[in-house]
Amino acid sequence: MNIARLEKTLQEINEIGATEAQGITRLGFSKEHWQAQQYVIRSCKAEGMAVRVDACGNVIARREGSQPDLPAVACGSHLDTVYQGGRYDGALGVAAGLELVRSLNEKGIVTRHSIELISFACEESARFGVSTVGSKAMAGKLDAKRLEKLLDKEGISFSEALTGVGLDFAGIESARRNGKELKAFFELHIEQGPVLENSGLSIGIATGIAAPTRLDVTIEGKASHSGTTPMNLRKDALLGAAEIVTGLERAALAETKYGTVATAGVCDVHPGAMNVIPDWVNLKLDIRGTNKESRQAVHNRLLDIFRSLVASRGLKLTTRVLSDEDPVLLDEAVAGYLAACCEEDGTAFTRMVSGAGHDAMNMAGLCPTGLIFIPSRDGLSHHPDEYSSLEHIACGAKLLEKAVLGYAEAVSGESLSYFTNLNRSNQDESGKAKHIV
Amino acid sequence: MNIARLEKTLQEINEIGATEAQGITRLGFSKEHWQAQQYVIRSCKAEGMAVRVDACGNVIARREGSQPDLPAVACGSHLDTVYQGGRYDGALGVAAGLELVRSLNEKGIVTRHSIELISFACEESARFGVSTVGSKAMAGKLDAKRLEKLLDKEGISFSEALTGVGLDFAGIESARRNGKELKAFFELHIEQGPVLENSGLSIGIATGIAAPTRLDVTIEGKASHSGTTPMNLRKDALLGAAEIVTGLERAALAETKYGTVATAGVCDVHPGAMNVIPDWVNLKLDIRGTNKESRQAVHNRLLDIFRSLVASRGLKLTTRVLSDEDPVLLDEAVAGYLAACCEEDGTAFTRMVSGAGHDAMNMAGLCPTGLIFIPSRDGLSHHPDEYSSLEHIACGAKLLEKAVLGYAEAVSGESLSYFTNLNRSNQDESGKAKHIV
Repeated sequence: MNIARLEKTLQEINEIGATEAQGITRLGFSKEHWQAQQYVIRSCKAEGMAVRVDACGNVIARREGSQPDLPAVACGSHLDTVYQGGRYDGALGVAAGLELVRSLNEKGIVTRHSIELISFACEESARFGVSTVGSKAMAGKLDAKRLEKLLDKEGISFSEALTGVGLDFAGIESARRNGKELKAFFELHIEQGPVLENSGLSIGIATGIAAPTRLDVTIEGKASHSGTTPMNLRKDALLGAAEIVTGLERAALAETKYGTVATAGVCDVHPGAMNVIPDWVNLKLDIRGTNKESRQAVHNRLLDIFRSLVASRGLKLTTRVLSDEDPVLLDEAVAGYLAACCEEDGTAFTRMVSGAGHDAMNMAGLCPTGLIFIPSRDGLSHHPDEYSSLEHIACGAKLLEKAVLGYAEAVSGESLSYFTNLNRSNQDESGKAKHIV
Repeated sequence: MNIARLEKTLQEINEIGATEAQGITRLGFSKEHWQAQQYVIRSCKAEGMAVRVDACGNVIARREGSQPDLPAVACGSHLDTVYQGGRYDGALGVAAGLELVRSLNEKGIVTRHSIELISFACEESARFGVSTVGSKAMAGKLDAKRLEKLLDKEGISFSEALTGVGLDFAGIESARRNGKELKAFFELHIEQGPVLENSGLSIGIATGIAAPTRLDVTIEGKASHSGTTPMNLRKDALLGAAEIVTGLERAALAETKYGTVATAGVCDVHPGAMNVIPDWVNLKLDIRGTNKESRQAVHNRLLDIFRSLVASRGLKLTTRVLSDEDPVLLDEAVAGYLAACCEEDGTAFTRMVSGAGHDAMNMAGLCPTGLIFIPSRDGLSHHPDEYSSLEHIACGAKLLEKAVLGYAEAVSGESLSYFTNLNRSNQDESGKAKHIV
């Protein structure tokens, strides 16, 4: 791996959609996103890879192995960003995959299994409100009917956006792949949270990806004058909301051992005047965890709070479950392999849960999948100040290379010794990784 | 008092500025407000009153007494409304004053003291953000420099609005009156709260007018991903706000015996996204009471909460006192006189605090002042559905008449017996009311 070249690749990607001091904007299927996809296509072709763009806009570049019929080992991430996002979220994984191929070519390494670099389309929900669209399409998890109707802020529909980059929505389901085509998938990504930085570790190996239960809660009270209404004759919707918000925190804190988290991110208050007791509040709540029972325990505690508010404050509550997705548990063998690689190299790592969604969670439905995190400074992401140090990038990229090469089974070329031992000890004859706890 | 005629007067006033099913809009100094003031001017002139409009737009109509040099007994309220307001707030007091004069004329009653009907200008803060402008001007409490610069939503300045109705801002301070001109002032108003309705009483006699301490509180935390940030690494501004909101309620409940109330009416949350921990919340808090120590106790408890939030949650708090007005205590003798009137007539009444501001609070700086409430259905005000029953209106108007006549000292005419006894027992030779506890 040439880390300076990887840095340059990241830099070149981030010239696309860059705005002065306002971060990077490459919304899914925008001109800028597509320009970035073209950059990857050109770069991969220059490395002799076979490149195709599937019906959902995923770029799939293939470096043929010595046994092309064997399932491929894939890696990748995405190049679309949120509005005014950072330089690492997504771009890191694609740039590292590209560097991996360049490095293999330079060293003349041949692998038994083909290697794929995938630059997924529309991972961020920023434009159409739905995330990881490209990997969902690939894993056959797309709700095409719903997707077709979605509009962005300019009123452009998802299918019009596809047409805009030369794709045809009618064919979108053909992006679905058969899991047998893939031996494994690896994604290198920034953590987007504070855990690694706070514990001084270089690598996080995701054991699972938490999925949110999302609730929309409307609290109805009664508007009245802030001066003329005695405390005991009030039906203050904001007080109800405040009890929910603090109760939600208590419920999540009780589930700390499962890593379950809960957040009230939206709290809209009506009428929002200093001299009127609020009669209406809308809360949007997000409960996440990989342990469904723990997540449900928080949800149940919330329902208790709702019931008690109706009784104690005479408020009317309406709850709607916006989403209740299943958490994804990642392949234990892959995580074990990644951990063994770290141990061999003396890299400080931890197994952890991914609180955010990633393309890896959909790919896990197709093939054994690994998700590697490197620290985010200050836990910051989706922000122009998003930053990961070159030292950590190097650490992550090397782990990605080691894992991909381990799974793809290098058969010739220089400097292979460092991963050969792992190959031998951790894979059986069929090339499948054995479980490592 | 002819209650049917009073009802008709109210109806005629409310034809001005009425919109189909959307309440009444007569913003201060608007065309509609001025049309309503002209209605009062015409009506008073028709009753033989001397009418003038002062430099701040207050209409002052005078029914000369037998001893014109004695201080006048005034009553009144206002005809401006909030945007899409109700039919009773303000209009009731003016219409009842007009009916009082008509009724005196009909009965040929002569009073020693002159009687004034005042229709105050711009009582509502709806247009320029400052309330009771007309009575402030009359009481010499106007901050003319500040007022001049105020703009309404259309960008029209206060002084331009005055020019629009033919007045000159330069002379506004001439609206100030000398307290010696007035023996007493009485305002009949709807309660705008639920106390009377809830206790099944017809009349509330205000003992004081609560003034708000208003605080603007900004809570700064740290935005981070709702999925990737463990509960113990969060600085959630909304959780801080929720603790303040619930703590404020507890603090006010502890002051129930003083009638102190506290409200968080504004709670703006940034960035307000479901998957981002809020980094910024703005609260606007309103603490009201007639007991300054009690109000301060709530304020102090809040400061304790602020300090504890900084320590426990690592939040940054910025507080600004928006206003901290002195509560107004109304004249005990006047309140006692009103109570005695109620007792004599067998009217169910209570002494209570006014949580809302009224012109009466400024007039109290000029002369002994009484403020009479009648029940508001459902405690509702500043709303198209604002309603007070004709039965309660009659009750309030009769009390107003009895009190004004008692203070103005009827000297001839029919049916005077019902207030003569009260006059005798409660006023000394100088015409000043004695204190009644």
